[in-house]
Parts: sequence; C-alpha cells; structure tokens
Amino acid sequence: MAQITVSFQGERGAFSEMAVRMFIGKAARPLPCHSYDSVFDAVEKGPAKYAVIPIENSLVGSVHRYYDLLLERKLKVIGEAQLRIVHSLIAPKGVTLSKVSKVYSHPVALEQCRRFFDKHPQIAPISFYDTAGAVKMLAESGLQNSAAIAGPLTAELYDMNTLKKSIEDEKLNFTRFLLLGKKSQKFKGEAKTSIVFSLNNLPGALHKALSIFALRDIDLSKLESRPVKKRIWQYYFYLDLIGSTDEERVQKALDHLSEITQFIKILGSYPRSI
Amino acid sequence: MAQITVSFQGERGAFSEMAVRMFIGKAARPLPCHSYDSVFDAVEKGPAKYAVIPIENSLVGSVHRYYDLLLERKLKVIGEAQLRIVHSLIAPKGVTLSKVSKVYSHPVALEQCRRFFDKHPQIAPISFYDTAGAVKMLAESGLQNSAAIAGPLTAELYDMNTLKKSIEDEKLNFTRFLLLGKKSQKFKGEAKTSIVFSLNNLPGALHKALSIFALRDIDLSKLESRPVKKRIWQYYFYLDLIGSTDEERVQKALDHLSEITQFIKILGSYPRSI
Repeated sequence: MAQITVSFQGERGAFSEMAVRMFIGKAARPLPCHSYDSVFDAVEKGPAKYAVIPIENSLVGSVHRYYDLLLERKLKVIGEAQLRIVHSLIAPKGVTLSKVSKVYSHPVALEQCRRFFDKHPQIAPISFYDTAGAVKMLAESGLQNSAAIAGPLTAELYDMNTLKKSIEDEKLNFTRFLLLGKKSQKFKGEAKTSIVFSLNNLPGALHKALSIFALRDIDLSKLESRPVKKRIWQYYFYLDLIGSTDEERVQKALDHLSEITQFIKILGSYPRSI
Repeated sequence: MAQITVSFQGERGAFSEMAVRMFIGKAARPLPCHSYDSVFDAVEKGPAKYAVIPIENSLVGSVHRYYDLLLERKLKVIGEAQLRIVHSLIAPKGVTLSKVSKVYSHPVALEQCRRFFDKHPQIAPISFYDTAGAVKMLAESGLQNSAAIAGPLTAELYDMNTLKKSIEDEKLNFTRFLLLGKKSQKFKGEAKTSIVFSLNNLPGALHKALSIFALRDIDLSKLESRPVKKRIWQYYFYLDLIGSTDEERVQKALDHLSEITQFIKILGSYPRSI
C-alpha cells in the first residue's frame, strides 16, 4: 500500500496521530512536528501530503494559534472529524499504582483528571509540554516512581503499561480535528465551508454579515472572533457554514459578503462529519 | 486617605497592577493573587473591594479563563480601561547588556520581543510563569548573567536596573482590563454593557439574537464564543453593547433576547472608555 505522509504537532502517539489514522487509515505515515508552524511547512514545502490539526475542544475551546495560521497560510481545509478524548494512566513496566508519586502530563490533561488526583492525594501532578511526550520521557528515563496521563495509543507505542483507563472527569470531551491539504478535493454528500473575514467598523456590520446567510437559509455551525493585529479592537470572524462553495446559493452569499467585508478568505469546503 | 484593596493575578509590578492604579489611583492597595480563581475569591469572601482582570489583548486575543469565570461567578463588571503594553529589559544592578546570556519572561512577552532576540543571538529566551515574577526571581537570586522582560513598574519595585526600554516589536499592543465589584455602580456618560447567553441550536439563532440589537440601533463592540461544557459543539456568546441597562431600549432588547435564549446573564453596565 502506498504510504501517505501526514504532519501533526506533538510526539508519536499524540491524540492528533489518532486523528491522522481516523482520516487516512492504515496508509498513513504520521510525521510528528515540533511547532504549529512546522505542521504547515511540512505540507507547503514537503514531505507531507496532508496536515492534521486540532481546531477546538468541547471543554477547553478553540486552538487560536491554528485559526491564526489558517488565515496566514495557504493550506485548504479538506476534512473534519471528532475524537473522544480518553485519558489513560501509563507507566513503565513493573511500576504499580502504589509506587507512583508523580504524574506527568500536559496541564490541560492534568486539569481534566482532577478527580483522580483528589482520590490519590499522595500523587503530585507535574506539568509537561505534551501528553505523549510525557510517556516518551518516562520510557527513556525509566523512572520507577512516575506515570503519565496520555491517550491509549501511547502505551503500546512506547512499550509501557496502562495502569488505569479513562481517568478523565468528564466523558463528554471531544476534540474536532481538521484535515488540511494544498488543494480542495471533490466529494459528495453534505458539505461544510469555513471562511474568515473582517468587517468595516460600522454599526450593525456583523448583523448584516449574518443576515446574508440567514436570508438564504444557510445554517452556521460556528462563529469565532480573533483580533486583527494592526487594527486595535477590531476582529476577524471565522465562520463555519453548512453548504459547499460548489452550490450557487453559497457562492451568491459569499459574493454578497465580499461586498461588505474589508477582507475575506475561503478556507475550504469539505464533507460535513459533525 | 482611606485605602482600597484591589485583587489581581500575578506578582507585584504586573501589568494588572498598573491597571489597578489606572482605575483606583493612589488610594489603591494592590493585592497580588496566585490563581485566576483567587482574584474572584478575594472580592467575594474579602478582603478586596474590587478585582482587576485583563480580559483581552489586541495582539493575542481574549483571556478565555476570565470569560469562563465571569459566567460562573457573581461579580459585576463596573469599569473598563486599556493599557499600552511596553516591555522593558530589566536586570540586577551592575549587570550590563554584554553580560546577559539568558532572558526570563512569560512566553507571550518573549514572543512579542522577537526582534530583540534576533539582534542579540547570544541571548537565550527562557520561559517563566509571569513577567513580574521573572524580575522578582532575578532580584532574589541575584543571577549576574540574566535579565527579565517585564513592565516598567517592576524595575523600581524590585530595585533593579532598566537596561532597555520598549523592546516590544509591535507598538500597537494594548490590553483591555475590567474592574469588577460586588454591586453595580451608578455613573454618568456613555455606557457599555457586557452580557453572556446561549441559544437553542436552531438555524439562524445567532442572526436573530443580533437582529434584536440591530433593529433597535444598539451598537455591538465585541462578540466572543466559548464552549458550553455539557453540550458538545454548542456555545456561550459573550457580547459587549453600547448602552446601559438603565436605558429603556437596552432593557427592551435584553427582555426580547431572553425570549429566544436558553440562558442569559447580565455581567454589568459600566462607563465606556474604549
């Protein structure tokens, strides 16, 4: 089977790598990248064909740096998928729960497992730059008094033991991922389209922008605002709508929107899966 | 002069403390707090009369944890003000720029001074939990090869030297602060009102919500969305409008909005200053 290289941010075994497998399946060759920027570079300059980014979490909110990169860079959104975030407690082989006095993970993951730490007051949560990175560090250091909180994929990958499964407080914890590529792709079925625009700072400007879609019965599924850096207290609006730029009513709506925007960019149309 | 205790997050000399002085003047007794929650606790349970929180930065965006706390807690927004963020390079006395090989600061501040690090490749940026905290740490440790990036107030406060002023890349860098108290206060002049609401997940729901204000010529200055934690991919909308809940048209608009919202909370009306 021909392999398809897909970039993502984080260490091997990260939730983003699980999302890579959801999008691409077994043909995927995951390419871990250190920075958010380098995930985009890997597709724009090679060797990756696609990139996978976590764009929002149902508990924590949006990953704003990725919204900024979607604005700045040239990649198109070509897919979306959601993954339930399940946190496992993972330790080097031979380490039992009673030996564990420190648990390493990303601060957000530690925060999402508060009840585990309440139940085990002798265990100290310790912030680490990455969930899968914490497992990797334990695998390399062989620390016998420590465990990590990370996704279930990491235990097998780093030859570690899962001490406890699903220790997250809130089961309704989903991350929405986007698949990015150099070019839009043809597809069938229901579509979603992501755009970003900025408005002239006039009374009712945002209401007018949303009217353009409401008057055409185009549903919106997300609206997010981010600062325009050179124009103080003005905003870019990131909007997801149900429909494709291949549909005439969506085209007309976007033409209409461009009459009243300072700036507009179509980030992509893709199969709706949420 | 009677002193007024005002809580803020961070160490003495933080930008939030400068905002405390803007709001309250010389009567202020700044109360530094370690966590975001404890800033609210200090007013709700004492000893503080007011709290000051940074709610958004014109380059970085909103401080979402504070939006969440405005929803969860009972404090009212009673004022707003903006402060230009100026980063200084600060070192223990006797340390000159040529001796400096490490610069400590909050990652956002380091990121906002990229040009300084490009010009001085021998100096390594090192992440620290807080800007003013980095100055405090240097004052206590007396490290002779290190400096910190922080606000101008910190040099005098910790008896340190300012090696360079205004090393931030982008001069259009403002933070908007809110003043919070237990009760709304009477005031004259132009008003702003902050609210938060969630909508039934119906087509065009957000458009309808904004129509309520547009049809009454009520201007909006900000719209921010945050996840509703127990309802996946649904959102709270935080909205700032120009006008006061003392005005009949604003009251009518909010009554109208409550007809179509699942949830609505008035965060406060306060004198507009931005």
